[in-house]
Amino acid sequence: MPITKSGLDPAIAARLKRDANGLVVAVVQQYDSGEVLMVGWMDDEALHRTLTTGRSTFWSRSRQDYWVKGETSGNRQWVKDVRLDCDGDTLLVKVDQEGPACHTGDRTCFDADDLSAVMGSAS
Amino acid sequence: MPITKSGLDPAIAARLKRDANGLVVAVVQQYDSGEVLMVGWMDDEALHRTLTTGRSTFWSRSRQDYWVKGETSGNRQWVKDVRLDCDGDTLLVKVDQEGPACHTGDRTCFDADDLSAVMGSAS
Repeated sequence: MPITKSGLDPAIAARLKRDANGLVVAVVQQYDSGEVLMVGWMDDEALHRTLTTGRSTFWSRSRQDYWVKGETSGNRQWVKDVRLDCDGDTLLVKVDQEGPACHTGDRTCFDADDLSAVMGSAS
Repeated sequence: MPITKSGLDPAIAARLKRDANGLVVAVVQQYDSGEVLMVGWMDDEALHRTLTTGRSTFWSRSRQDYWVKGETSGNRQWVKDVRLDCDGDTLLVKVDQEGPACHTGDRTCFDADDLSAVMGSAS
């Protein structure tokens, strides 16, 4: 169950624009290489834990529970930087990822499925 | 109004896991520097247009309409690569961004609000 009264700094909580389920999108990026590793979701408490523990914590929409990335797999994410976007509904979480980020064993969740876009160019 | 019958390749459409509004998250990244520029939303038709026109197209949840990034501002995004994540609910769109990506004039939508996370470390 989500925690109704989270420990999140009220000054941050006031800037969040949550969806109907009380969540914001969290884009997770490898801090040095710039790889986009995965996307998760956070409620206020998951963000609070992410900001204060040095480990990324998400809200699982399927399991309806908190999960600390790597808690069972060992593929932990060490938080380096967390930023909120201009309209308050998306977080960018820069981490140092141990091992693969994806549950499939791939480094990132975007490695497997290239949609073969037509490339655009200004010239 | 969203288009109910989109031109999206049915083989791709079958892999999408859309939210209750028929949308998937689209993370937009500068293709060479790795900067995460912004996050938008796409329905099937927005993805179809993104994959086939060389310009990123989103579904605006606030305006309830399609928008081609840079159409009014001139800050266009030229598509380089589009990938779908492991569970089909998030796209990674690599682009070449002209000018600032953020409506505030910042290069990215994540430049302004650092949440001062406690940094984690394996050691």
